[in-house]
Amino acid sequence: MRVFASNNHGLHTALELSRGKLQLSAESPRRAEIIANTLLNAGHDFHTPGDLDVALVCKIHTPEYINFLSSAWTRWQKKYGDDTPAMAFAWPSRNLAPKRPDDLVGQIGYHSFAADCSIVADTWQAAIEAAATAQSAADHVISGATTAYALSRPPGHHATSDQFGGYCFLNNSAIAAQRLLDSGIDRVAIIDIDYHHGNGTQAIFYDRSDVFTVSIHANPMDEFPWFAGHACERGQAEGEGWNLNLPLNVGTDYAAWLNAVNTSLEQIASRSAQALIVAFGADTFVDDPLGTFTIRTSDYTKIAQRIASLKLPTVIVQEGGYAVEAIGENVAAFLEAFE
Amino acid sequence: MRVFASNNHGLHTALELSRGKLQLSAESPRRAEIIANTLLNAGHDFHTPGDLDVALVCKIHTPEYINFLSSAWTRWQKKYGDDTPAMAFAWPSRNLAPKRPDDLVGQIGYHSFAADCSIVADTWQAAIEAAATAQSAADHVISGATTAYALSRPPGHHATSDQFGGYCFLNNSAIAAQRLLDSGIDRVAIIDIDYHHGNGTQAIFYDRSDVFTVSIHANPMDEFPWFAGHACERGQAEGEGWNLNLPLNVGTDYAAWLNAVNTSLEQIASRSAQALIVAFGADTFVDDPLGTFTIRTSDYTKIAQRIASLKLPTVIVQEGGYAVEAIGENVAAFLEAFE
Repeated sequence: MRVFASNNHGLHTALELSRGKLQLSAESPRRAEIIANTLLNAGHDFHTPGDLDVALVCKIHTPEYINFLSSAWTRWQKKYGDDTPAMAFAWPSRNLAPKRPDDLVGQIGYHSFAADCSIVADTWQAAIEAAATAQSAADHVISGATTAYALSRPPGHHATSDQFGGYCFLNNSAIAAQRLLDSGIDRVAIIDIDYHHGNGTQAIFYDRSDVFTVSIHANPMDEFPWFAGHACERGQAEGEGWNLNLPLNVGTDYAAWLNAVNTSLEQIASRSAQALIVAFGADTFVDDPLGTFTIRTSDYTKIAQRIASLKLPTVIVQEGGYAVEAIGENVAAFLEAFE
Repeated sequence: MRVFASNNHGLHTALELSRGKLQLSAESPRRAEIIANTLLNAGHDFHTPGDLDVALVCKIHTPEYINFLSSAWTRWQKKYGDDTPAMAFAWPSRNLAPKRPDDLVGQIGYHSFAADCSIVADTWQAAIEAAATAQSAADHVISGATTAYALSRPPGHHATSDQFGGYCFLNNSAIAAQRLLDSGIDRVAIIDIDYHHGNGTQAIFYDRSDVFTVSIHANPMDEFPWFAGHACERGQAEGEGWNLNLPLNVGTDYAAWLNAVNTSLEQIASRSAQALIVAFGADTFVDDPLGTFTIRTSDYTKIAQRIASLKLPTVIVQEGGYAVEAIGENVAAFLEAFE
C-alpha cells in the first residue's frame, strides 16, 4: 500500500500531565518510528507528503486557531524565555465565559481542553506535516488508488476546529475528509476505531451532512475525553442524524467490538458515502497501557477485512496506540486486509 | 481584632501547574504562618474556629461536590496507590458536554477549572478548617462584634458551588455571607479586593439578590481566571444587577484602585446591605509575584479606612497574596483601620 510519512513528526516531543505528574508523553516519536520500520520491512511503498494546502486547513480550523498555534511557542519564549513546554493551567470549564482572552496563557486554555499535550518549539511544524501526510494520502485516493495510509503524527481526532487536546493539534482525518469532498465527492464517511472517542472530528462536522462521522470507543463515563462521545450525540441542524457514537464498556472484547464495527458499516452503507476515512488507533490492543479492550493483532486484519468489504476508496489515518513495541505489527495487520 | 485561625491549614501543601512546570504552590502554608505571627505580635486576639456546620456548607456547595472533595484522595490512592497529587488532565471546556463522568480522573476535571491546585491527603480537612474559620468569624459578628478576621487557608473566592480552582476548594467568603443571612440579616454585600476576580463567589450568588457581590480585579482578558470577571457580568434572574465587576488594567496604581473601591462603596451603600464581607487578597501589593498592581503597605490602611466608613458589621476573610515576606504587614495594615 502507498504509505505517506514524514520524519518531521519527531520535531514534536512533549510532556503530558497525567497521574499528577508531568512526564514524557505516551504519544512518542518512537511510535511512528516503529510503525515506519515495520511497514518498510513489509515492503510498503513509502512517500513523503506534499505541501499542506492552507486553504484546506482553514475549512477545518478557524484562522484564529491557526494563528494561535503557529505563534504560540514564539510568544511563550518571549514571555518566559525558557524551554518549558507551553501549557495552560486554567480552562473555560462549565459555566465559565467562553470569551477569548488577550493573554497568552489564557489563550492556551481557551484553545485547549486538556493538559495531556503541550506546545514545544516545533509542534506547529510537526502538526503541519501530520496534516500534509493525511492530505497527500487523500490525494492519492483522489487520483484513483483504492487505498492509502497516512502515518500522521501527532494524531488528530481529538482536535476541534479551535482546540487542541488528547495529543492532537490539527485534525488530520477531518482534513483528509475535506480534501476528498473538495475533489468532487458528495459524501464521505469517517469511521473512528481508536479506543478514545473522536470528539474533535465529531465537533467539526456536527452540523454537516456531507460527512457521516462514526466513532466506536470506550464509554466516556469511564475514559478520556470524558466530556463527549455519548450515544445521544447525533449531530445537529443540517447534521442531525449524521453523527453516530457507539460507546463500549471498559474491557470490551473482539466479539463486542466487531459487533459495533458491523453496526457502523451497515450505517455507512446506507448513507451513500462515496469514500471512507478510517481513523485508526491501535490503542484497542489488549496490551495498550491507556486502553482496556482486548483486541489482538490478528483481530485487526479481520476487522479491516470487514471495513474493506464496503469497497469504498479508503484513506487510513493513524490516530493513537501506545503499546509501542506492538504498534508496528498492529498497523501492518490492519493494512494487510486492504492489499 | 478577634482573629480566627487554625493550624490545620498546613495539612494542605500542594503542587501547581504553572509556566509548564509542576511546582510547589505559591499558595503556601508559610503565607498563613507569617500572617499569624505578625498579627500575634501586634496583639490581636486569636481564637480557633468551631466545628463547621455541614448544613451551612450545603447551602453554598452541592452535596455531589462535597462528596467528591471528601472522598477524592481516598479514591485516588485506591486507583493509583502512590502519593502524587490528585489532578485532572482534561476539562469540560467550551463546547464539550458538561455531563459528570463516573471515572475519578474525569470527575476531577468535571469538578475543577484549573490545574493550579491539586488534592493531597489532607486537602479536605484543611478546606473544612478554612471554611470553619470564616464561619466562626461570621458568628463573632453575629454575636455583636463590629468586625472579625478569618485567616482562612486555603482561600476560597475562586471555588464555585461545585468546582475548585485558583487554589480554592470551599468558598469561605460565601459561607461567611450565608452564615450572616441565616442569622436573620436580610442582605449582605461582599467586596472582593483580591487581585484576581472572585469568579466562584460571583457564580454562587449570580441569581440571588440577598448577596450583592462586588469584585475589583485585574482585567480577565489579561489575568487569571480569564474566563470570568468582565464588567458585562451583572447577575441574572433574581440576581440581575446584584453582581458588579470592576476590572482594572494591568499595572493599576493606588489612585485608580481607590477610585474603584469608592465606586464599589457607593454601590454597596445604596443597596441597603446590613453586613459586609471583605474578601481580602494582598496580591494587589506592588511586589506580589502573581500581580501587577502597585499598592503599598500603607495604602491598605487607607483603603480599609474607606471600607470601614460604611460602618457595617464586617467579616474580613483572607484570600490570596503571594509576596510572602510582606503579607503579614499588609494584612496588619489593613486590619489596623478597623480597630
